[in-house]
Amino acid sequence: MTGNHQLPFDLKDIGGRAIAAARLGTRGANPIVGAVVVDVAGRLLAVGHHRGAGTAHAEADALNQLRADLDSGRIDALPGNGPAEWTMVVTLEPCNHSGRTGPCSHAIRDAGIGTVVYGASDTTREAAGGAAWLAAHGCRVIAGEDIDPRWAGAARAANHRWFAARASSRPFTTLHLAQTLDGRIAAADGTSQWITGPASRHHSHRVRARADAIVVGTGTVLADDPRLTARFADGTDAPRQPLRVAMGHRDVPAGAAMIGDGHFHHVRTRHPSEALAELGSLGIAHVMIEGGASIASAFLAADLVDEIWLYQAPLMLGAGRAAVVDLGIESLADAKRFEYDDVGDGAVQRCGDDVVLHLSPAPAA
Amino acid sequence: MTGNHQLPFDLKDIGGRAIAAARLGTRGANPIVGAVVVDVAGRLLAVGHHRGAGTAHAEADALNQLRADLDSGRIDALPGNGPAEWTMVVTLEPCNHSGRTGPCSHAIRDAGIGTVVYGASDTTREAAGGAAWLAAHGCRVIAGEDIDPRWAGAARAANHRWFAARASSRPFTTLHLAQTLDGRIAAADGTSQWITGPASRHHSHRVRARADAIVVGTGTVLADDPRLTARFADGTDAPRQPLRVAMGHRDVPAGAAMIGDGHFHHVRTRHPSEALAELGSLGIAHVMIEGGASIASAFLAADLVDEIWLYQAPLMLGAGRAAVVDLGIESLADAKRFEYDDVGDGAVQRCGDDVVLHLSPAPAA
Repeated sequence: MTGNHQLPFDLKDIGGRAIAAARLGTRGANPIVGAVVVDVAGRLLAVGHHRGAGTAHAEADALNQLRADLDSGRIDALPGNGPAEWTMVVTLEPCNHSGRTGPCSHAIRDAGIGTVVYGASDTTREAAGGAAWLAAHGCRVIAGEDIDPRWAGAARAANHRWFAARASSRPFTTLHLAQTLDGRIAAADGTSQWITGPASRHHSHRVRARADAIVVGTGTVLADDPRLTARFADGTDAPRQPLRVAMGHRDVPAGAAMIGDGHFHHVRTRHPSEALAELGSLGIAHVMIEGGASIASAFLAADLVDEIWLYQAPLMLGAGRAAVVDLGIESLADAKRFEYDDVGDGAVQRCGDDVVLHLSPAPAA
Repeated sequence: MTGNHQLPFDLKDIGGRAIAAARLGTRGANPIVGAVVVDVAGRLLAVGHHRGAGTAHAEADALNQLRADLDSGRIDALPGNGPAEWTMVVTLEPCNHSGRTGPCSHAIRDAGIGTVVYGASDTTREAAGGAAWLAAHGCRVIAGEDIDPRWAGAARAANHRWFAARASSRPFTTLHLAQTLDGRIAAADGTSQWITGPASRHHSHRVRARADAIVVGTGTVLADDPRLTARFADGTDAPRQPLRVAMGHRDVPAGAAMIGDGHFHHVRTRHPSEALAELGSLGIAHVMIEGGASIASAFLAADLVDEIWLYQAPLMLGAGRAAVVDLGIESLADAKRFEYDDVGDGAVQRCGDDVVLHLSPAPAA
């Protein structure tokens, strides 16, 4: 699978561009992936990335650009510098299975790409084997690990939480927090609407629309009776609606707003791992946790949060319900550690009057 | 003081540039001020701003540039388009007193600038009267209020807290907070060093070096024994050291680190307004509050915080001491409201592994 490793470009540079392209995607059910196609002179012909579950994989995105540019004459396939001499650099081993899109291994072979260099190996049961399939079908396939282990490591690290979730056969989880500067989600008298502004709420609805399921605790259902639909800024429903999930032992009133059209599920447990297992068994691959504080804290304490969108309003309360309540941590050395994550919209952004922080758990040291 | 208001430029545009220049400064003992000089064709000749107490005022900064450019021939003073025909647009009425620098009114007259348009009136006792002095000395002086009240309002609003502090004859205050994502400054067992990283601490030392005094509660002195010196990244002391102030009723041990070389003061009160009055009487014009939580909260509750630098480490604790503890607020409608403030380094910035937020109290609605 390795063969002659001579490449007409610097993998650190071109591979870095593929990772940068991957980071334009969004986290969720699928990993972030970037793909770059380079000619024999090391010129960049196409840069593609995956935009989230249900959309083209990064390889297909790059190949679609390539085909359009070849058809329109914007680029030429010349003797000695055509697809057979071109190299695709992709951050993740091309998939070998048909999900909502066809297998990338076949698409690459069909496009006649001569060489594929990939970063992280695909270790998932359903999609693995793309590298072997391509090698068996005449493609020169190179594991980035064999040329530049540092790049391959960075390509894998870009999805470290996605790999962890898959290794545990559980959905990927996104935690939504909307708080004051002093970490409160309600004032002393319980008032909580609204802490963040309309721009932040609109942003969080876009994140909702990417998830397969939205989870709130039964306490939040009883206190706030949220609708939990993904809505556009004008208030209309987004076409794709996540499953609305209540979590906890208390009953959900028959007239609860989140039951709505019945796209609703009640998980009767307070244990995050049990809830994720039950949702996984329903085919849910991406769960968004919307609160309240006990549910959020339970997922955080169990290390079952893969990314956080933290909306911070420029307010201080000094008292009232905290966003995060008990993580079982005694000492600063045991604090939960995150890193600002620039995938998607960016790690830190102004959003109306608020600031939105995007975080991922820091990899274990 | 108004005269003929015809100007060879759009005040909204040129005045906006002066405000943008002002925002390059830093908040503290002095207001932020920007000054722009424009010729008869509306061309920008110079843009100046004030960089903080002890440095050139914005008008002097712009005039210094102008003089250097005239001396070197980069710009020309032509018949019909020389200083007498030029206009200075300044966000704040030029001062009329000699502090650490000479009066701007005299400098403008000496430079022969024909017209001055100013935004906010200087209402401070010592510095007021610059507009009248200039008008009495042959300068055409126009209050921006008479041409573009919106611009003049924005020029005043840029320093709304500085004006409020001066109106109360109290020092301007900067609050320093360094916390986790969930608003904690110590873990359950009291461990607190270090929550933020070296880059944040270095940033806060630069802010310290701008202040006249650093205040901590006596509880913090007894618990942490901080040095409170302003230090460079390499650990050496900055040349300018603020007065180190302990606030509260408890005695400070004779060997406390903050006493150091004796540039130390003990304010025996827990009331922020009393502390500020005492510091003001010592000639302190800019106070930085470094904590702990009770002191910070007392200043916030009394609406005596003029700006906040909030350093946020990507950590969660779920328990332990909160940065802000009691503001006397019951309901969300009464929350302390701030706005992200882009003056100086910017409203939101990455700083090592942390994020630094710069906030100012929102003006009363």
